[in-house]
Amino acid sequence: MAFLSLVGAGPGDPELITLKAINVIREADVILYDALVNESLLAYAKPGAVIRFVGKRYGCHSLSQQEINLLIAEYAISHGHVVRLKGGDPFVFGRATEEIMAAREAGIPVQVIPGISSSLAAPAGQMIPLTSRGTTESFWVTTGTTLTGEVSADIDLAARSTATIVILMAMSRLEAIMDIFAGHGKSETPVAIIQDATTEKEKVVTGTVRDIVFKAQYAGMSNPAVIVVGEVVRLREMTGTVRQLINRNEER
Amino acid sequence: MAFLSLVGAGPGDPELITLKAINVIREADVILYDALVNESLLAYAKPGAVIRFVGKRYGCHSLSQQEINLLIAEYAISHGHVVRLKGGDPFVFGRATEEIMAAREAGIPVQVIPGISSSLAAPAGQMIPLTSRGTTESFWVTTGTTLTGEVSADIDLAARSTATIVILMAMSRLEAIMDIFAGHGKSETPVAIIQDATTEKEKVVTGTVRDIVFKAQYAGMSNPAVIVVGEVVRLREMTGTVRQLINRNEER
Repeated sequence: MAFLSLVGAGPGDPELITLKAINVIREADVILYDALVNESLLAYAKPGAVIRFVGKRYGCHSLSQQEINLLIAEYAISHGHVVRLKGGDPFVFGRATEEIMAAREAGIPVQVIPGISSSLAAPAGQMIPLTSRGTTESFWVTTGTTLTGEVSADIDLAARSTATIVILMAMSRLEAIMDIFAGHGKSETPVAIIQDATTEKEKVVTGTVRDIVFKAQYAGMSNPAVIVVGEVVRLREMTGTVRQLINRNEER
Repeated sequence: MAFLSLVGAGPGDPELITLKAINVIREADVILYDALVNESLLAYAKPGAVIRFVGKRYGCHSLSQQEINLLIAEYAISHGHVVRLKGGDPFVFGRATEEIMAAREAGIPVQVIPGISSSLAAPAGQMIPLTSRGTTESFWVTTGTTLTGEVSADIDLAARSTATIVILMAMSRLEAIMDIFAGHGKSETPVAIIQDATTEKEKVVTGTVRDIVFKAQYAGMSNPAVIVVGEVVRLREMTGTVRQLINRNEER
C-alpha cells in the first residue's frame, strides 16, 4: 500500500541513526536518499528494494524539489512504501513540509522518523555543549539567510542574545555574519567551525568573531559546515577533545 | 579501566535511541540513569552490570549534582566503564559539562554520545516542522528562565524574532512568557504544548499566545512538556497528525 516515511539518517556517522530509522529502512520498497546521507546505511535495505540518489552533486543536474515530490508519489503508488532518507533530521532545514504536502495531495499517508541533526551532533562531536549551566541557557539554530539569500535580520537579534548560535550552510556569508556579532561588542566571543562533522573527513577550526574568517580561509573550510558562536566554545578546552573516543572506543 | 560515557537516551520512545548508544550500554559496567530515561533501555545492559537510578522523583530524596559527580568517579575507579544515561541529548540542558569536568579532575577519560533531544522530537511527533521554507528559517531552544528562576531577557528577543521558539521545562512560567509574546503583537501566533512526548502518555494542546494558558490549565498540562511558539504550529493541520503511524506502523 502507498506510504511515505521521511526518515532522518543522522549527521554522518552511520551509528548515529536510530533503531526506528533502521527498522523503517529495512521495510522500504523504495529508498530515495540525499547527498548528506552516509551510503553505508543503504546496506539495511531489503533485497530488491529500489535505491535512488536524488540529492545535489556539484557539476551534475540535480532533481528539483517538484521532481522529487512527483517521484515520491509515483513510486509510492507503483511500489508501496517509499523511504525518503535525509541527512540529519527531516524537520530541520529538510524541506519535509513540501514533501508531506505533496504526498497528502496524492492521498499517501506519511510518517516522520526524527534523526540527530548535525546542528547538535557537530558541536557534540567536538565536546562543545550547546547549553551549560551558568554559561548559556539556550541555543538558536539558523541558516543565517532569508529565502532571497540575504543575511537574516534575526542575526542581529541573535548577536544581542545570550544564546549559543548555531549556523548551518552559511560559509559564504561568514564574514557578513561575523561583522554583525562584532557590531554588538562580541569580537572576542569564541567561534568554532566544524566541517563534515562525525565523519572521517571531519575538520575543525576555532577562533573568535574577530579572527575566524581569516582562520577558516587559511584552513580551506567549506560547506557542509556548522558554525558555533558562543562562550560554550571555550568549554571545549576544559572538557577536552576526545574526538577519537567518540568515533571508536579503541583509545581507552 | 576507568572510563565515562555520557549517553543520550532520546526523547522517550525506546526506538528513538541510536545504535551507538545501544552499543555503549551493552559494554557498560555501571549504568547511572535519570528520571526521563525509558527503563526498557536498561534491558540492553550486560549481565552483572550495576544499574542505579540517580534522577529526581517527586516526594523522594534525590542526589545532588555533586553526589552524582562523586558516584561517577567512584564507580569508574572501582568498576571500569560508567554509562551516564540521560534523557534526550546530554549537551542540551543535560548538565554534561559539570560531570565531564568532575571526571576529568579525577583523571577519567570521557566520551559523549548524542541523543535525540525532546526539543526536536516532541514537535516532530506532532508533525510540527521546526523550520519550513517560506515560513520559518530558524529555531531557538530555551528554558525561558535564568539560573535564579526569573524569565530570561532573551524571551523578549525571541518574541521579536522570526524563529520558532521551543521552550522546555517552563510550564510554571507559561503565563509570564506568553505575556511577553503578546506584548510584541503576537497574540494570534499559534502555540502547541506537548507533554510526555513520544511516549504512550503523550498529550498535546494547541492554541494561540492569547488562549494557550487557559487551554493548558483546562487540560491539566504539566512538565515534562515542550512548548512550541511559531507559525510552523499551523502546518500541523496541513501535514496531518499521524501520531499512531509514528509510534507503530500498524495503521497502514
